[in-house]
Amino acid sequence: VSWNNKNKSKDKVESLGFDIEANGHQVPGIYWKPEGGSDRLVLLGHGGGANKTVDYIVNVARLLAAKGIASVAIDGPGHGERAEFASDDPNWDFQKVWHGNGGTDTVIKDWKAALDFIESQEGARPTAWWGLSMGTMMGIPVVASEDRIRVALLGLMGNWGPNAEDLARLAPKVTCPIRYLLQWDDEIVPRDSVLALFDLIGSTKKTLHANPGKHKDVPIPEIQGSVEYLDRYLTVS
Amino acid sequence: VSWNNKNKSKDKVESLGFDIEANGHQVPGIYWKPEGGSDRLVLLGHGGGANKTVDYIVNVARLLAAKGIASVAIDGPGHGERAEFASDDPNWDFQKVWHGNGGTDTVIKDWKAALDFIESQEGARPTAWWGLSMGTMMGIPVVASEDRIRVALLGLMGNWGPNAEDLARLAPKVTCPIRYLLQWDDEIVPRDSVLALFDLIGSTKKTLHANPGKHKDVPIPEIQGSVEYLDRYLTVS
Repeated sequence: VSWNNKNKSKDKVESLGFDIEANGHQVPGIYWKPEGGSDRLVLLGHGGGANKTVDYIVNVARLLAAKGIASVAIDGPGHGERAEFASDDPNWDFQKVWHGNGGTDTVIKDWKAALDFIESQEGARPTAWWGLSMGTMMGIPVVASEDRIRVALLGLMGNWGPNAEDLARLAPKVTCPIRYLLQWDDEIVPRDSVLALFDLIGSTKKTLHANPGKHKDVPIPEIQGSVEYLDRYLTVS
Repeated sequence: VSWNNKNKSKDKVESLGFDIEANGHQVPGIYWKPEGGSDRLVLLGHGGGANKTVDYIVNVARLLAAKGIASVAIDGPGHGERAEFASDDPNWDFQKVWHGNGGTDTVIKDWKAALDFIESQEGARPTAWWGLSMGTMMGIPVVASEDRIRVALLGLMGNWGPNAEDLARLAPKVTCPIRYLLQWDDEIVPRDSVLALFDLIGSTKKTLHANPGKHKDVPIPEIQGSVEYLDRYLTVS
């Protein structure tokens, strides 16, 4: 009896923080580097009121790393290290947080700066987007304007909220394969607004996955499935 | 160099026809038996205007057999060997075809007779339903009234068509895990009616998968995925 070479798993991942000076402010980020490096990258957009190290972002980063995929997250506008108020502070106002920090255009530039930085350090690699809720408020603009992104996991967002008009305007410019998650009983983002935004996405390959439950109750198999989806479409050519 | 034991596939399947005398008429059916037998069974409901040996039913039967799962199909009311008119005959009328052959109640009884017959021959096994369009017009009533069915793949149907009221009444009685397919640009069954029927399904585990395209343009990976879904949920206890 001895150890064999089967069922080895590549689940060791190193995390590295970084700060970028971009667009007149600091963009703090974190990079998850699978042991042995990676030839693929996923950009992770966190949700409203959360930040780059919220539990579900770290969870997805680890699931990706287990498949040998690197990932990177930054704090969104007015979130995490960039926050003036915590999201449970009475002074926290999502409209002000989004627009007071430059809104959609600045989000696009911040993510471009983060991707440029990671590519300068680790080289250019096939790249995907993963982001729900505010992660889609950031994701649709980034994916629409960034040719380097080949596939995206989006969802929990409609033509609704602080950048509703930007989302409706930019969704038709998204053309890569998309999986889009909808929580059927979403108490925050109205179901009809999610269906309407999904409808506007320009991609010919797009699939909506809807499950019962509230905004934050995405079933665990759907999260695991989202990582498998990116793994499948993010091919090294 | 020699053949090894890897990548063996169990894709040999025997098909056997049968006729049941049930509910005052003949119910013609076909049983697909994977080589070496099977400890699981799927009931395959064909769509309107089709029959038990239409190409996509045979395709799903073979995909299931490749996973060691047996399957059975019968001709629906007024379809296949039970048809008075072909579906491209000007005399073909879907309302008359459905109701003139006993409607929803008779469909339930026909499928019960088919399942009883197969169990009498092959024993009782964990059983699933697979059926789109008219395969869901039959499937929701059968799954709602048949405790032997543990999981179902449904879709391409709304609270619409010849048995719209039966579907709306019975959908809340469906409680097993469900995957439900929707074609976003369905030109036959209105999208809103599909969303409304999905909403009515009583199961706590239900997932809607929506893809662009017309009624019959279900993407091939979604069909392959539907078989993997049943394979995953149809466990032998």
